[in-house]
Amino acid sequence: MIIVGGTATNGIDENLSKIVKVPLIKVEHKIFPDGESYIRIPQLISGQEVYVVQSLYPPQDKHIIELLLILETLSDMKNNRITAIIPYLAYARQDRRFKEGEAVSIKTVLNSIRRAGADSIIVIEPHKMEELSYFNGEVKVADPIPEIAREIKKRVEKPFVLAPDRGALERAKRLANELQCEYSFIEKERDRDTGEVRIKNLPDIKVRDKDVILIDDIISTGGTMIQAAQAVYKLGARKVIAAAFHALFVENAYERMINSGIKEIITTNTIPQDPSKVVVVDVSPSIARKL
Amino acid sequence: MIIVGGTATNGIDENLSKIVKVPLIKVEHKIFPDGESYIRIPQLISGQEVYVVQSLYPPQDKHIIELLLILETLSDMKNNRITAIIPYLAYARQDRRFKEGEAVSIKTVLNSIRRAGADSIIVIEPHKMEELSYFNGEVKVADPIPEIAREIKKRVEKPFVLAPDRGALERAKRLANELQCEYSFIEKERDRDTGEVRIKNLPDIKVRDKDVILIDDIISTGGTMIQAAQAVYKLGARKVIAAAFHALFVENAYERMINSGIKEIITTNTIPQDPSKVVVVDVSPSIARKL
Repeated sequence: MIIVGGTATNGIDENLSKIVKVPLIKVEHKIFPDGESYIRIPQLISGQEVYVVQSLYPPQDKHIIELLLILETLSDMKNNRITAIIPYLAYARQDRRFKEGEAVSIKTVLNSIRRAGADSIIVIEPHKMEELSYFNGEVKVADPIPEIAREIKKRVEKPFVLAPDRGALERAKRLANELQCEYSFIEKERDRDTGEVRIKNLPDIKVRDKDVILIDDIISTGGTMIQAAQAVYKLGARKVIAAAFHALFVENAYERMINSGIKEIITTNTIPQDPSKVVVVDVSPSIARKL
Repeated sequence: MIIVGGTATNGIDENLSKIVKVPLIKVEHKIFPDGESYIRIPQLISGQEVYVVQSLYPPQDKHIIELLLILETLSDMKNNRITAIIPYLAYARQDRRFKEGEAVSIKTVLNSIRRAGADSIIVIEPHKMEELSYFNGEVKVADPIPEIAREIKKRVEKPFVLAPDRGALERAKRLANELQCEYSFIEKERDRDTGEVRIKNLPDIKVRDKDVILIDDIISTGGTMIQAAQAVYKLGARKVIAAAFHALFVENAYERMINSGIKEIITTNTIPQDPSKVVVVDVSPSIARKL
């Protein structure tokens, strides 16, 4: 058993290696002057059970291609079983044809990873669980909710977990179980063309004087979180914390979230973060539980 | 029969559509704020013989992923035969393991393209012909040498074709045949780590007072061309013209080539160019000959 650290690991490969006490080999890599990636496995790995760590945070396409190069090289070396550990799975939101003729991007990404040599994958909970069925092999989902809950407990007195949309309800329920508190959800609509998010109806959620934890899979532009925060403050919430597995913070999302009254943002290291701005939870223990 | 214009075509899709009188459908595409690509085929194409035009110039990884998304979408639409027309094939120079453990990048790229749905490919002559055998399907190679020769004829009096390395000799021979002139080659060595190029031995090439045309597949940093130009000027050449199928011009390659005494650079539109600086030959007629 061996862990191979890819080109985009954000330290998860090293943490995981320490936790499970499995040796780590770091991939040798560079970018040629024209922008092409160079990949080399600096040690012959053969007949092994190999775990490749590669997160697919931006630049996503480069990190995907590099993962394919690593997988096919390990496959050429004739290993017994190759598992791709993908802390952040890119293209997870394009999981069906919202309009006819659209690429189901996550299907192509997962198919490419499978065909390049991954027998199985381990991911942190993606946008929708169903989309993982596009991967024609074993799939394990690591759940960092216990680690996230531990950080939240330090910061709240009267917690209330709120899913900013119905899709995140199951996730909210699990977090609420950890925090032993109530939970609910907001019903929203997203316009696929403009990306604009509207709250359809606010259910009867009792957040007055509560510390509301908004939990979602991804923070991208932060629009969903900001709209939810504004809504719950109107309902009398004491403070709002935003928690997400993956925080991309595009287009000044961080600043706009803080300006909207969100007091703290808790996320994980599936995407590199500035620890002076957000609370960063290591997902390595959750991955280790799946090995 | 239908032509689908991808996200990186540089006009080749439109030119080809006009030459072969086959309708063109342009792929709808955008980049999400987080950097992910969105792809949509805006028209249902089913049961057709489809030719997808997608060049893989920088950013190569993005253009590769976009090609995979297009191919799988067309494949999902159940077309009879899908051909990927790839004017510039990225990763062509990583065509074998120069060191143990290296990724054979072009193999992974060609495998991914095949598995995403391309039954066949048409490329402009790549770095080495042998590497195309990694594609497990029909391969056609378009040859724009006649078009390049036409531009060269306007610019020379006493042509002499020189391959800057032995690998380019066959190409030089074909160009020399078109120009009805002599040809030869320079023997070189490239250090894989530093990228440094050394001329091993200058064969007995008679270029005194000749217009030397250096012909290669790719201009990247221009180092190969510059070294060859300096060598032939020492041998008494009258002027030097550089011709290449694909010109990447990384790290001020253009300026350094002109400063080395290269009078003109002739290349093609497989990679976008500034026509005020280089002579740009359209490869569409050469592709049309293969349809």
